[in-house]
Amino acid sequence: MASVAEFCDAVDNSTITVDVVGCSAYLAATETDEVLAGVMEGLNVFFLLFAGAAVFLMQAGFAMLCAGSVRQKNVKNIMLKNLLDACGGAIGFYTVGYAFAYGTNDEGGKNFIGTSNFFIRNFTSGEDLIGWFFQFAFAATAATIVAGTVAERCKMAAYLCYSVFLTGFVYPVVVHSIWSGDGFLTAFRDDPFRDVGNVDFAGSGVVHMTGGATALVAAIVLGPRKGRFYDEDGNPLETPATFQAHSVALQILGTFILWFGWFGFNPGSALAIDNSESAATAALCAVTTTLAAACGCATAMFFDSIMDARATGEVSYDLTMAMNGCLGGLVGITAGCSVVQPWAACIIGVIAGLVYYGFSKLLIALKIDDAVDAVPVHFANGMWGVIAVGFFADPTLMAIAGYNEEKGGVFYGVGGDLLIVQIVAVLWIVGWVAAIMTPFFLVLNALGMFRVDALEEEVGLDISHHRGSAYDLTAPKKEDVEELMEVRASRHGKVEVPKEVAQAAETEA
Amino acid sequence: MASVAEFCDAVDNSTITVDVVGCSAYLAATETDEVLAGVMEGLNVFFLLFAGAAVFLMQAGFAMLCAGSVRQKNVKNIMLKNLLDACGGAIGFYTVGYAFAYGTNDEGGKNFIGTSNFFIRNFTSGEDLIGWFFQFAFAATAATIVAGTVAERCKMAAYLCYSVFLTGFVYPVVVHSIWSGDGFLTAFRDDPFRDVGNVDFAGSGVVHMTGGATALVAAIVLGPRKGRFYDEDGNPLETPATFQAHSVALQILGTFILWFGWFGFNPGSALAIDNSESAATAALCAVTTTLAAACGCATAMFFDSIMDARATGEVSYDLTMAMNGCLGGLVGITAGCSVVQPWAACIIGVIAGLVYYGFSKLLIALKIDDAVDAVPVHFANGMWGVIAVGFFADPTLMAIAGYNEEKGGVFYGVGGDLLIVQIVAVLWIVGWVAAIMTPFFLVLNALGMFRVDALEEEVGLDISHHRGSAYDLTAPKKEDVEELMEVRASRHGKVEVPKEVAQAAETEA
Amino acid sequence: MASVAEFCDAVDNSTITVDVVGCSAYLAATETDEVLAGVMEGLNVFFLLFAGAAVFLMQAGFAMLCAGSVRQKNVKNIMLKNLLDACGGAIGFYTVGYAFAYGTNDEGGKNFIGTSNFFIRNFTSGEDLIGWFFQFAFAATAATIVAGTVAERCKMAAYLCYSVFLTGFVYPVVVHSIWSGDGFLTAFRDDPFRDVGNVDFAGSGVVHMTGGATALVAAIVLGPRKGRFYDEDGNPLETPATFQAHSVALQILGTFILWFGWFGFNPGSALAIDNSESAATAALCAVTTTLAAACGCATAMFFDSIMDARATGEVSYDLTMAMNGCLGGLVGITAGCSVVQPWAACIIGVIAGLVYYGFSKLLIALKIDDAVDAVPVHFANGMWGVIAVGFFADPTLMAIAGYNEEKGGVFYGVGGDLLIVQIVAVLWIVGWVAAIMTPFFLVLNALGMFRVDALEEEVGLDISHHRGSAYDLTAPKKEDVEELMEVRASRHGKVEVPKEVAQAAETEA
Repeated sequence: MASVAEFCDAVDNSTITVDVVGCSAYLAATETDEVLAGVMEGLNVFFLLFAGAAVFLMQAGFAMLCAGSVRQKNVKNIMLKNLLDACGGAIGFYTVGYAFAYGTNDEGGKNFIGTSNFFIRNFTSGEDLIGWFFQFAFAATAATIVAGTVAERCKMAAYLCYSVFLTGFVYPVVVHSIWSGDGFLTAFRDDPFRDVGNVDFAGSGVVHMTGGATALVAAIVLGPRKGRFYDEDGNPLETPATFQAHSVALQILGTFILWFGWFGFNPGSALAIDNSESAATAALCAVTTTLAAACGCATAMFFDSIMDARATGEVSYDLTMAMNGCLGGLVGITAGCSVVQPWAACIIGVIAGLVYYGFSKLLIALKIDDAVDAVPVHFANGMWGVIAVGFFADPTLMAIAGYNEEKGGVFYGVGGDLLIVQIVAVLWIVGWVAAIMTPFFLVLNALGMFRVDALEEEVGLDISHHRGSAYDLTAPKKEDVEELMEVRASRHGKVEVPKEVAQAAETEA
Repeated sequence: MASVAEFCDAVDNSTITVDVVGCSAYLAATETDEVLAGVMEGLNVFFLLFAGAAVFLMQAGFAMLCAGSVRQKNVKNIMLKNLLDACGGAIGFYTVGYAFAYGTNDEGGKNFIGTSNFFIRNFTSGEDLIGWFFQFAFAATAATIVAGTVAERCKMAAYLCYSVFLTGFVYPVVVHSIWSGDGFLTAFRDDPFRDVGNVDFAGSGVVHMTGGATALVAAIVLGPRKGRFYDEDGNPLETPATFQAHSVALQILGTFILWFGWFGFNPGSALAIDNSESAATAALCAVTTTLAAACGCATAMFFDSIMDARATGEVSYDLTMAMNGCLGGLVGITAGCSVVQPWAACIIGVIAGLVYYGFSKLLIALKIDDAVDAVPVHFANGMWGVIAVGFFADPTLMAIAGYNEEKGGVFYGVGGDLLIVQIVAVLWIVGWVAAIMTPFFLVLNALGMFRVDALEEEVGLDISHHRGSAYDLTAPKKEDVEELMEVRASRHGKVEVPKEVAQAAETEA
Repeated sequence: MASVAEFCDAVDNSTITVDVVGCSAYLAATETDEVLAGVMEGLNVFFLLFAGAAVFLMQAGFAMLCAGSVRQKNVKNIMLKNLLDACGGAIGFYTVGYAFAYGTNDEGGKNFIGTSNFFIRNFTSGEDLIGWFFQFAFAATAATIVAGTVAERCKMAAYLCYSVFLTGFVYPVVVHSIWSGDGFLTAFRDDPFRDVGNVDFAGSGVVHMTGGATALVAAIVLGPRKGRFYDEDGNPLETPATFQAHSVALQILGTFILWFGWFGFNPGSALAIDNSESAATAALCAVTTTLAAACGCATAMFFDSIMDARATGEVSYDLTMAMNGCLGGLVGITAGCSVVQPWAACIIGVIAGLVYYGFSKLLIALKIDDAVDAVPVHFANGMWGVIAVGFFADPTLMAIAGYNEEKGGVFYGVGGDLLIVQIVAVLWIVGWVAAIMTPFFLVLNALGMFRVDALEEEVGLDISHHRGSAYDLTAPKKEDVEELMEVRASRHGKVEVPKEVAQAAETEA
């Protein structure tokens, strides 16, 4: 190339000859390439900005979903936890988390943890900076999954400790093993495990299982909420008490926001959108994400309706089932969204609905109390999602999404390597999280730092820890309203009594 | 082109000559074009991903708006309907809807319905896949419009039947006729109806009228809610009862989310953003959408304030008017957002506010009960939007947006062809929906599958069909709070009594 | 260039020669450049569409935050104000605001106000149109900041007057001075003030201080809410009364939506994303925005917890502190998001948390009543944000973001010019807003148009001005529920009594 440039430098530009034409064209093409490279960088940065912001909005979704699911006396507490783990996640992932997850080290081979880029020092390019932003949003998601499960009884300080620990260390180790270039299960190196590495495109395992497994461990160590499975004297109840969600409106709002956010979560995991393959991958993710959510929702709700109708003789439709079935479908498709066909996404979603249903009932049978059913949604369907890839991954799509196209799901007759890797990944995540979080929570518990005292739990955390309850729906004083009505009536000679006053009058009479 | 390539293949590259320079330049330019094509594909896919996701979020907007508008006893029911029609829409549009809407068939000429691409089989490109996603979001919007109108009295099973039928068949037929390449009213073929075809850029007619007309038919067949227009004995009330919205907060949240989503709905309908024309079109849509919404909101609210002040002598500002005027403006600009000037968008918005106001009063006069006023917003303003194009479409903008630039609104002195086409489109949509949905709902009704029984309606659908009410705002027990206060007081010797307890004490005294 | 074209026009294309090759390459390169220019335009328009829509969604965030913060009796009023100022903002900024802000005039030199582009006439390019949209969203933000501060006592008509006046004139003048090419403090001309001009990347000063300063003036003129600082007889209370927020759920939802919107607000202010520098700038903004918000949140909340624990002996965590600390951090980073390093963003956020805390307490000490603490968040941290740039701006980043790279923060040892400019900007904005808004509000007040009458305030604005209260949580009638249970029991011989009925029965007994 340099020599063409040299040739052109020597060309006489005083009159237009064929030399000048060729060199002009050469120069124009070169300049265009530079401009185009800038456009591509801008496009990719924008793509991850959009996707990261959408994933960040999932924090609002989780906050609404969790807050809606708990009792009125713990709303402030769960909301604050959701807000603070986003903040703690940012700080933890900025200081050390990103370095552990994506940092490299001198050796070059596979290793346990990254050791460069602490405080993302020296990050100057748009690509690097937006990469941190996008990954932070994922880390915050992993952290926030736990909030719901331990709601209504976990101490604030314990929650903060755990959430910084998770985003700063536990989650980054999982990320490093599966998504970095140096991890022992990563697909993104020349010699991946069993020639393929773990296919977990957007993190059914990395994000949802990690969060969900932590939630499960926490729920077991922390124990159920007072009165859920046992009476005052500690005797098991015949049927577990259900604590009614305090606001279905918030639950559904949260569900929709989460579903929306997932259109950043899954398509965004293509990480770039400046070429035809990335475009096809991101677009496929949008389609499969939609279908799995829809199928999960319908399956969980109708299956529950049928079961319930057989038991009670009345047909009813349960919102919680619909909502969590939907989220289960979303978690289930997250690993495979880029490598399965739309029809397979439907099947994955249907099964995800059933997985949610079954695991939710199982937890109750085991007397493990999950205040928002995050474990069935994220942990159980996280596992299902990772394993489903081992069955349904289409080799053609594997190639487009950047994986080894010689491997794929067992249904495509290309051998069981991928399925084996997926199972190993599940075991690794479960093992790692259990090994590190169990002692962590046990120590917290032994020190009396994990669970609020019984009276505080009874009163609720809002009054006991957050200076009062979350709502104050007090209406204005009746006398004042009546006075206003009289004033207005005397002015116009006619006035409509508002419903409030009419009701008040009725009550009195 | 091939021969230039042949020439270059034969060039001796051992020393740099003018031949080599020219060929290098030629090669570079060719390679750049390929890369650029990938960038353009990625950009367009990303654009529709963003727009589709924003349109999808409108589901949350509708859910909040409708839920806020109904009474507390039916909140779960309407929320669940909103969630399920998104799911049903996905499944219906995946299996057959898209094929009916955009499929082709052998004949090539204009036809009634598409017959290829069932289950979007063989879709592999990013463009095709994201196209499905974007169109699905529109289909789901059409379906969900009906939910609000029939709220508080429609059976769940009937709702599900209708919503799958709408997204799977009724709506796709309308889409095929207007937006596909083979429809009898489409603008996107060489020989469109009256040389122009129907200009309905983002679907005032296709989406909003289809949904709104269905809602109207349903409302008529289903009848008003108990106690709205008639007393217990079936005698008409002197003044219709108004059922207070249970939560204005949810209504306004829904309105803002819908407005936000419209920035995907309208600009996204440019379908591409990889060139100067598309960019100008999408940008114009953002501007006109904003202005029409603002004008619709202000007009409806102030007009109502004036009317009301003349009747009662008190000035008041009605939130529902503001909110529905805003939505009316949005629906009204949807057909013409890309082909009218900003000043015309203001006029369209002002008239949309009045159309909403008038149609809302008309429905009450006709004793047709629309629980959320979706018919005035979507049906009436859908009609207005389609017809407004016949007056205000600027031929210059028609050209940029890809329509026949020789046609336009009658105000531009280019003849009445477009206006005629727009009127035909309105008649077609009304006729088609009425013809197919009226018997559908009548049969459902005759079979007793449409309306819940009177007692269930009185109790509300949440308790009768969804296992309990949507809210539980029960505060913690007073004794517990007092005990906590005592414990703390004894520890520190001072403690603030929270408002809850103080109030409780007051009530007792 | 033209002569190369002439040479090529004359080339004989009948056989392929080196002339033809060179010319083909030249032509291809030229055509590619044209296509690429279209792509770049589309990309930038899309970027601002996304960013503008995200900023627009902040209207929902403000509406939820403010509504959640006020008492139940004023929810409709504040919501309506939020909706209407978005509409008023659109109309005001369309008609004259944009012209005043960005219009040019004949002189060419620095001037006070723009005088072209009224009604954005002649805007046809995507860039121009989307530019209006993006800037409108900012104007609407500035306007809506005031709504919260004056909540619960300000007349609707006064609010509308002020908000159109602000978006139509007061705010555009500030924009013109700092962001246009002709302003006396702008950085975007060859001869900026002190060789650098005001660095206020996304508007800590332009948007937040302008809105916040207006809010402060309004709060002083309007006076505190009844019973906040004074008793019925006008004697100061020993401790100010706190009016409990009516819904923490809405507050937190609003906070998350605002944070999300800020990812449009700050990165979007790069205004383009079609090159490497813009990409780096936008990406940096996403990172610094995240970190400042996180640090502000944690700092304000924990600082308050420590202070409170020292006073009361009980550790508690205050949601309002966390939420407003977060917003304070966001406002604080808005000026410098593109020119400070991530570590500096953390420091800015920490200080922002303290600034919020201190200013909030100061307002109370001064008996200035801010119903949602918008003044400490937007005004105080707006000032902090502008001044922080004078300390922390990194010259390297200044260059990338398009500012004079020879200037920067004093911590970088490049002199105090920038700091001086930043201080001048703060004084200018405070001075301008105070000078124009103080008489405006005083006149409104003197005419009795500013504050609602005392009885209306006591009753609340919802009943007195908006036809009833915002919520109606009335449950269905107990008799009806019981009847339904009996009917079902007789059908199946078994039935579960829903919680509602059980409770009702209890209450009776």
